[in-house]
Amino acid sequence: MLRDDIPRGSVVTLRHTSEVLRGNAAGDPHERDVIVYLPPGYDGSDRRYAAVYCLTGFTGRGQMLLNDSAFTPNLAERMDRLIAAGTVEPMVVVMPDCFTYYGGAQYINSAATGRYEDYLTDEIVPFVDENVRTRASRDARAAMGKSSGGYGALIMGMRHAAVFGLVCSIAGDCYFEYCYLQDVSKALRAIDGDPAAFMRRQWEVEKRSKNDFAALNFIGMSACYSPREDGGFDLPFDLDTGEVRDDVWQRWLEHDPVRIAQRYADDLRSLKLLFLDAGKRDEFGLDLGARILSRKLRELGVPHLHEEFDDGHFNISYRFDRSLELISQNAA
Amino acid sequence: MLRDDIPRGSVVTLRHTSEVLRGNAAGDPHERDVIVYLPPGYDGSDRRYAAVYCLTGFTGRGQMLLNDSAFTPNLAERMDRLIAAGTVEPMVVVMPDCFTYYGGAQYINSAATGRYEDYLTDEIVPFVDENVRTRASRDARAAMGKSSGGYGALIMGMRHAAVFGLVCSIAGDCYFEYCYLQDVSKALRAIDGDPAAFMRRQWEVEKRSKNDFAALNFIGMSACYSPREDGGFDLPFDLDTGEVRDDVWQRWLEHDPVRIAQRYADDLRSLKLLFLDAGKRDEFGLDLGARILSRKLRELGVPHLHEEFDDGHFNISYRFDRSLELISQNAA
Amino acid sequence: MLRDDIPRGSVVTLRHTSEVLRGNAAGDPHERDVIVYLPPGYDGSDRRYAAVYCLTGFTGRGQMLLNDSAFTPNLAERMDRLIAAGTVEPMVVVMPDCFTYYGGAQYINSAATGRYEDYLTDEIVPFVDENVRTRASRDARAAMGKSSGGYGALIMGMRHAAVFGLVCSIAGDCYFEYCYLQDVSKALRAIDGDPAAFMRRQWEVEKRSKNDFAALNFIGMSACYSPREDGGFDLPFDLDTGEVRDDVWQRWLEHDPVRIAQRYADDLRSLKLLFLDAGKRDEFGLDLGARILSRKLRELGVPHLHEEFDDGHFNISYRFDRSLELISQNAA
Amino acid sequence: MLRDDIPRGSVVTLRHTSEVLRGNAAGDPHERDVIVYLPPGYDGSDRRYAAVYCLTGFTGRGQMLLNDSAFTPNLAERMDRLIAAGTVEPMVVVMPDCFTYYGGAQYINSAATGRYEDYLTDEIVPFVDENVRTRASRDARAAMGKSSGGYGALIMGMRHAAVFGLVCSIAGDCYFEYCYLQDVSKALRAIDGDPAAFMRRQWEVEKRSKNDFAALNFIGMSACYSPREDGGFDLPFDLDTGEVRDDVWQRWLEHDPVRIAQRYADDLRSLKLLFLDAGKRDEFGLDLGARILSRKLRELGVPHLHEEFDDGHFNISYRFDRSLELISQNAA
Repeated sequence: MLRDDIPRGSVVTLRHTSEVLRGNAAGDPHERDVIVYLPPGYDGSDRRYAAVYCLTGFTGRGQMLLNDSAFTPNLAERMDRLIAAGTVEPMVVVMPDCFTYYGGAQYINSAATGRYEDYLTDEIVPFVDENVRTRASRDARAAMGKSSGGYGALIMGMRHAAVFGLVCSIAGDCYFEYCYLQDVSKALRAIDGDPAAFMRRQWEVEKRSKNDFAALNFIGMSACYSPREDGGFDLPFDLDTGEVRDDVWQRWLEHDPVRIAQRYADDLRSLKLLFLDAGKRDEFGLDLGARILSRKLRELGVPHLHEEFDDGHFNISYRFDRSLELISQNAA
Repeated sequence: MLRDDIPRGSVVTLRHTSEVLRGNAAGDPHERDVIVYLPPGYDGSDRRYAAVYCLTGFTGRGQMLLNDSAFTPNLAERMDRLIAAGTVEPMVVVMPDCFTYYGGAQYINSAATGRYEDYLTDEIVPFVDENVRTRASRDARAAMGKSSGGYGALIMGMRHAAVFGLVCSIAGDCYFEYCYLQDVSKALRAIDGDPAAFMRRQWEVEKRSKNDFAALNFIGMSACYSPREDGGFDLPFDLDTGEVRDDVWQRWLEHDPVRIAQRYADDLRSLKLLFLDAGKRDEFGLDLGARILSRKLRELGVPHLHEEFDDGHFNISYRFDRSLELISQNAA
Repeated sequence: MLRDDIPRGSVVTLRHTSEVLRGNAAGDPHERDVIVYLPPGYDGSDRRYAAVYCLTGFTGRGQMLLNDSAFTPNLAERMDRLIAAGTVEPMVVVMPDCFTYYGGAQYINSAATGRYEDYLTDEIVPFVDENVRTRASRDARAAMGKSSGGYGALIMGMRHAAVFGLVCSIAGDCYFEYCYLQDVSKALRAIDGDPAAFMRRQWEVEKRSKNDFAALNFIGMSACYSPREDGGFDLPFDLDTGEVRDDVWQRWLEHDPVRIAQRYADDLRSLKLLFLDAGKRDEFGLDLGARILSRKLRELGVPHLHEEFDDGHFNISYRFDRSLELISQNAA
Repeated sequence: MLRDDIPRGSVVTLRHTSEVLRGNAAGDPHERDVIVYLPPGYDGSDRRYAAVYCLTGFTGRGQMLLNDSAFTPNLAERMDRLIAAGTVEPMVVVMPDCFTYYGGAQYINSAATGRYEDYLTDEIVPFVDENVRTRASRDARAAMGKSSGGYGALIMGMRHAAVFGLVCSIAGDCYFEYCYLQDVSKALRAIDGDPAAFMRRQWEVEKRSKNDFAALNFIGMSACYSPREDGGFDLPFDLDTGEVRDDVWQRWLEHDPVRIAQRYADDLRSLKLLFLDAGKRDEFGLDLGARILSRKLRELGVPHLHEEFDDGHFNISYRFDRSLELISQNAA
């Protein structure tokens, strides 16, 4: 909610029809909105801008970045302020929609959710470059996000460094032992032996129980990390006892940035900006994930910036300021 | 977020310039948006509709009722569903903006915030009736809200029964001893002797501390219940010791629905619908507030409906369903 | 649990038969243990010692002050340490048992619990002076306690300054609006319309629900503050709606130290030590209670010491150190 | 705290001088109390009794089982009640002291804490049989405990089935991934790079911070599971990043009942009673640990009883009733 009298950018909603999402196993729409923030001065000029792709956390999608709140600016209002203050250059911000029936997509391809990694890199990026006056080069294109969005940004930096030359991960999912395993018992109780029934209730009943988020999170991550060919997915624990299923867990670890960074070391080294950020009191231990990843990166000789701030995992959108500032400084 | 294939209504944003808010002491804008949900079928017909004014809780404004969320429909999506299910008749929903520098207005007139009671009844209602095809009568006009919005709905039913013939209060502020006094110690700590400095920080710093909400709530309510002629306000407790200031507290109690219901008994008896709703585990004891008010109403011979549901104060927008259903059944 | 090699005092348990508690309405025993800590050097000397009466909080009794704990000394171990460190002089510590069926007695006389104020001042003090080598004068006799025990100490200082010349209240119950009213809704839910049945369950069933303590606290305080002649008691709120019963609440306020201090101003002024202590984050707002009482005392010209420490209401037995030190310095 | 008029047993404290604990690396005393509950009727008869060894949880020792509490019987009072009710036969209950500088010993031998497994089986059991009229046979000797005490009971059943023929584990440490790893981030923050300094503070400063227990727990378990020959110990995570140290973690897993049950399958099969109990909402996921262990036992053909109750990990001493009843029924 705004009280300041500064130049305002505008928000446009582009409708995009996806080929790669068509017929996805989760039954989610392949026509989706791509929301784009255009900075003050965009109209009436022919200037080209750096583009920041802001990836939302689990259960989010681009639209939510524009939700109205009393004392916290939404992403468009935040950009207006940062630009007015001279902290960041005018930039375009892209807010894609990668929400799924299971709560999210982790911005990777999965037989259970859909090919969201391809969707982002092969379809949305060219589509935006076609419809918006971006500087259409990897050196002026950033991926930024918090939590699962930070994870997605890291994936972009590892597997798509030719597309995204700048990467900011705020409390991105890392070191899966800590960020996920702590919640098995809660998830088990809420799932109560039947993940499909749980998902139906999730969509049909609004009232939530306190273990429901843990259950949804495990189901959502399973749909991304351990899908089956038939469009289903395997949970990484036994539904009766909660015991870790080692084979499934190994498939999860194949997606852990800490484990796979080495494989993409050259790509990571090529980035113009790689920023790891996390709150020192992150409830999911993602500050530890960032520390562990940072150490791996140092061992691999990957230049990066690693910061910590005095907060937890929630209500930290004010940390976008730091990422946006770094992107603005490093974009070519 | 929607997965169902049902007829969709539309949302229009009307711009309104207020006379009564012009030059308000809080320095808030007098030009504001009035957001209106139009049901499916509105366009291409000349039908007139009942109108529900949905009043938001403290720190809210109309726009927030349309915020996007993963598994919870916003108010427009909720209406689409209820209409599609046949639970409610097509109705118009009006979402006004009564947000202020202090977090809210309780929908009453105050020398510190502005004349929001007049704004709503004297300006917004006629403005909506002029611009939207409502059935412009009190028997087809409802005030509904949760928390401070429920309080506002009760105020409308007591002082403006000629304007709003139907009233639904979900966990509306009632019996001020319980809903406010429990938080004095938290508020005192956060305010730290200087309410004005606290408010400046509230607007300048995004990071919140855990006692901040209690502080804001006390300041906001003071701006509404115990304003001074000079545009300032008096807190109901001593800033050093926390002791209740009896004279200020008496001014607060002059706004407690439980205390003032008797004064407006005839108006309340004239309502076509008066619905009190609250969660049995309301963290602010507002279920007790509703019980106490319900008993007063019985003693006064005011017909009303009183229900409780098994939940607390937060994340209960699903209870709008019950209020909207009752409004639909009782609107003429 | 002790790891230090220092002189140890001893603990003796004296059996006392009370006349004033005989036939009490609550059916509690009138024969009780009085536990006394004797400092190192007590045996084999004829020295006389100052005596500290340590009053436990609600649901406590003297025996609990000697409970074994891993990293926190019990009261005897604490005394050993403070004496060995030279922080306090060798003193006797008396730990009386004023527990009742309702959880406590607030150290006052009540038709529902028993005459515990008389029990302490008329029976236990003389009994101890007879059986233990105390300096049997009010200038060498202190009342000290936390929470309800701090309340009891204040009562001793107000009504029995001729018996206890030194008083230390750590987070003692004060300013009843804040310390009690915040829990009405929890208590109401747990009591569920039948206080007697609640008490029976309390004694029969070990498993507790989360609102049970609030219920017990209200019942216990009612037994102390608003007993009836027939041995029953009145709760200060309506059992259906939770509304405050003003007549009963007035009887409670007649026991609030903040309200009655004025009546005993001369007695309070006569004390050799009056110490008010509280944690700045006390969950029951008792730091505010202490501040308000301190201001009243200043207005009444009652010399006293008022401190705050950075903690809450629980696990603060380490603050006994400060009270014991002050008692040692001020006892004659 | 007792209100019932039933026959009371007695408690004796035996002083024992240990050879195996003499000169332990932690510097803890080798002279310790062994507390023994003798049932009503013990004196004045020559009857011999079954003996239950009750092992305390982490940070506990035998003495704490007799702590006084308002509405919860201590272990002696509990036995009195169960015997009076006819639920259990008169039995002796032994409460040993295996507390250490690091908070506990897990009832196993360690170069960092001491040989507590030997202490219990080679010294305390014979000592008790010599000094108390027990039926000195494994079929009349039970090990029972909660949390770390339940872990100890399982160890007795696996490695000392010739000594203890009956075993009851209530929420015993099992499946270390869940019961320990969830707290690494808290522990890391509190340890702050220096475990030895943390332990010194633990003993010197009474005021605790909220992450301290997690830190103490990790240090204590490391002292038991991953001691070094020099009397120190290795933490299972990197002190800078929190990353799991695989080699240390493997040493921990060598102590996980779920992993080592197979090795002791014959011993376990020989037990007269093996009871696994846990609360369905155990905050450390120990209900899952019990489920996983129960499945392993079934696969190994080990007869046992597995129950769950509707509660968490804390304040569940009432569940001793069930274990004691089963021991009474199965002891020979």
